[in-house]
Amino acid sequence: MSSPVEIPLKNILAIDRFSETPVYMQIARKMINTIQHGVLVPGVKLPGTRALAEILQIHRKTAVAAYTEIDAQGWIETIPNKGTFVTMKSLVMPSGPLRQKLDYTAVYPEKTGFTFRQSMLLDRSVSVSKAELEFTDGLPDVRLAPMDKLSKAYSSVLKRKNNNRYLGYSHVEGNEYFREQLTSYLNNTRGLHIGKENIMTTRGIQMGIYLASMLLIEPGDHVVVGDLSYYVANMIFQQAGANIRSVPVDDQGISVEAVRSLCATTRIRMLYLTPHHHYPTTVTLSAERRIELLNLSVQYGFVILEDDYDYDFHYHSSPVLPLASADASGMVVYIGSFCKALAPGLRSGYIVAPQNFIAELAKLRRIIDRQGDLMMEQALGELLNEGEIQRHLKKAQKIYQERRDLLCGLLKSEFKNYCTYTVPPGGLAVWTEWETDINLLKVSKECLKKDLYLPQTLLFQTGKLSAVRMGFGNLNESEIGKSLGILKQVVEMNKK
Amino acid sequence: MSSPVEIPLKNILAIDRFSETPVYMQIARKMINTIQHGVLVPGVKLPGTRALAEILQIHRKTAVAAYTEIDAQGWIETIPNKGTFVTMKSLVMPSGPLRQKLDYTAVYPEKTGFTFRQSMLLDRSVSVSKAELEFTDGLPDVRLAPMDKLSKAYSSVLKRKNNNRYLGYSHVEGNEYFREQLTSYLNNTRGLHIGKENIMTTRGIQMGIYLASMLLIEPGDHVVVGDLSYYVANMIFQQAGANIRSVPVDDQGISVEAVRSLCATTRIRMLYLTPHHHYPTTVTLSAERRIELLNLSVQYGFVILEDDYDYDFHYHSSPVLPLASADASGMVVYIGSFCKALAPGLRSGYIVAPQNFIAELAKLRRIIDRQGDLMMEQALGELLNEGEIQRHLKKAQKIYQERRDLLCGLLKSEFKNYCTYTVPPGGLAVWTEWETDINLLKVSKECLKKDLYLPQTLLFQTGKLSAVRMGFGNLNESEIGKSLGILKQVVEMNKK
Repeated sequence: MSSPVEIPLKNILAIDRFSETPVYMQIARKMINTIQHGVLVPGVKLPGTRALAEILQIHRKTAVAAYTEIDAQGWIETIPNKGTFVTMKSLVMPSGPLRQKLDYTAVYPEKTGFTFRQSMLLDRSVSVSKAELEFTDGLPDVRLAPMDKLSKAYSSVLKRKNNNRYLGYSHVEGNEYFREQLTSYLNNTRGLHIGKENIMTTRGIQMGIYLASMLLIEPGDHVVVGDLSYYVANMIFQQAGANIRSVPVDDQGISVEAVRSLCATTRIRMLYLTPHHHYPTTVTLSAERRIELLNLSVQYGFVILEDDYDYDFHYHSSPVLPLASADASGMVVYIGSFCKALAPGLRSGYIVAPQNFIAELAKLRRIIDRQGDLMMEQALGELLNEGEIQRHLKKAQKIYQERRDLLCGLLKSEFKNYCTYTVPPGGLAVWTEWETDINLLKVSKECLKKDLYLPQTLLFQTGKLSAVRMGFGNLNESEIGKSLGILKQVVEMNKK
Repeated sequence: MSSPVEIPLKNILAIDRFSETPVYMQIARKMINTIQHGVLVPGVKLPGTRALAEILQIHRKTAVAAYTEIDAQGWIETIPNKGTFVTMKSLVMPSGPLRQKLDYTAVYPEKTGFTFRQSMLLDRSVSVSKAELEFTDGLPDVRLAPMDKLSKAYSSVLKRKNNNRYLGYSHVEGNEYFREQLTSYLNNTRGLHIGKENIMTTRGIQMGIYLASMLLIEPGDHVVVGDLSYYVANMIFQQAGANIRSVPVDDQGISVEAVRSLCATTRIRMLYLTPHHHYPTTVTLSAERRIELLNLSVQYGFVILEDDYDYDFHYHSSPVLPLASADASGMVVYIGSFCKALAPGLRSGYIVAPQNFIAELAKLRRIIDRQGDLMMEQALGELLNEGEIQRHLKKAQKIYQERRDLLCGLLKSEFKNYCTYTVPPGGLAVWTEWETDINLLKVSKECLKKDLYLPQTLLFQTGKLSAVRMGFGNLNESEIGKSLGILKQVVEMNKK
């Protein structure tokens, strides 16, 4: 055994009197760290508790507690009449500059020591702005959402005597009561004919697309989407190995003829639709095309993934019923969420399909995300049952229609030299096509300087197209006015 | 154009006066359905609104509203002075018995019309019991969780003026405030040295294992686990294509020698550990082995996936610090959750790793589950900041220790002829090994008849081993007594 440790223990074991960690634990941790990192090596004799207490200016009891802790974890050994010794082998330390740092202070590594799969496909970053005003890709105004009602329902669930039903593990498919309520809500609002065995709840649209894609797409499979289409869905399909095939979209939605002629030459695995309202152009897929596409899916055996993210708000007639409401052959997987109806932050969605598919989806979901938030689902189920969500939707619809009209009016009067648009029949965004001599990227950057966020993900510049999907739902009337004021200023500066 | 429709409209359009769907909408939906399904074919002349009102005994305004709706969706066309006609093509209908059903009522298909990937690997089902008493695999007692505090914090967040920060989209990595609180909580309790850029929040342990596996495992990669190990983790690794390599586990945890000799012959990609406390046997991985495994990981370049699901409750000393606290080379991916600290139903976990890995994890998570529940994360962050969760853990620890002692005492006095066990140093489960002439599967079934659920997932029967992981955390003292009483009765009946 070597001689007592001579390194400046006081520096190594510097105590932070303001830390939440008790002093004895701080000392134990730091001493373990120095052992791990090879500063104190096996065989080194440590100072006795009395000496340690003196060095560190602590109570002797604290020193004893620290050694007890280190001992309990197996790093040191006390031999009666001899003293306390380091027993444990130390870490193999990295060489170079990190080694030096690590000698006295613990530093978390800056990079992994291993490689891993990196996907260029997923590189499109999520940007979060703190600007006062923001165009979204069609999000609702969360200030309108009945948060007081939700909060009350949530508290009531949390405080309920039998709340352990929601606090433990349960069915992967979701809270049973919520699924029952959701079943009748979807049957009532969307003309579906499903039972609760046809629903699994999800964390939102994204999870629905992901889970379905993992079960449906093999590498090389052809997946048909509109040109343009929802880029995150494309990322998921490509991540699963799909070959993306784009077909034109006109003012009735995706071209049936284009899908038909593709089917004639290529084995299509899946068709991805956003029938209400086509992303990003906001077109409604006509009822006739819905029927034709369903017929094609039966004829050629492809799956229709119907992403009905935007069913909730439709201004002149009721929304056109989903393809899933007419699916007699089990070709449609239907997904939706409460993102637009309530708030994107309330992560609640669903996937509807024949029972054999739901069963397999649940098996996959189980290893990704054991189950959803049963408490939130219970609260939402109760709000559905009481009609609160339905009442909110009615109220919100009027407000959004006014906002749409205001926005379109301003586009007409103030932007006629810069862009054209179509009044969308529903949804929370307007599709605008801009003069190609306006640099939208530059406009987006300039707007941010004036506290208006126009994210790049809303800009669509492909070939001759120079367009913006202008989500307005989150902006009230005065904010719409302000935002378009800023936008006009910036566009005028960038035109000439 | 053919003559007016002669089919019994009144039957087809039977109105449900108790439905939440307005009558005009019911009529519109059903008529659309009959058109879709080819009962009403293009060219058919529909009764006028006056006639329809009479047939169905409704107000004429309701009939007008129904036709307006059907017209708005494009299914019919009204020609002045001629009448209203079906315009839309119908669905191609399946043949056989379904066809007949579909003629008059809409039925949702029982099965998909397409095939999909089915994984035998994931076939282990999740069972949910409604029995009064239940052994879990080591879950906490949710009745002890500070739900009043959580409920208050949650309501306060929901009602806050600036709650739109939590209700919209934000960073994939999680609520920033929560990540800050979590960072200092983990640094304080687990001796980590991380910044908030090293954390992404997850929905729990499962999601952490899944995301990491998707980035790390290529088909054919060798993943080392203990024999025995956590079966859901194995399912995830195998789903990713891994080759599972088991190494022995003794009373110090996974055998380092076995890992070392495997490394000598095989390129190991990843080592999966549950150091506190090994699943299912509840052994603590010794500090010395932690260091040795870390050294091996640097030497052979394998990743350590440290699943510290059970760090919270350790009864005699503080828990042994995680491998992640000593990782200077970026070889450890550390995952944990609040499942044991609070409740499994509160889906909140985290993954800790060097920043470059967190960035890639976030990109993948984004397409699966856009973001976590920012409101719940805010509430949890505030509870961490106020020390509520820490206080709860201290209180709960004492209770669980008493429960452990009670259970082990009863095992000693009442079950000495049937099983052996080791008093676990921590965690919420006891590992029991049973006489091989006791049919555990039968015992499990018999127990359920007496309202005690002993799920099959807790039974480990391999070769000579006949064991039960007996989770007791969820049972109070009287429930432990009752449960073991039932168990003893059943075992005695099944012994002889």
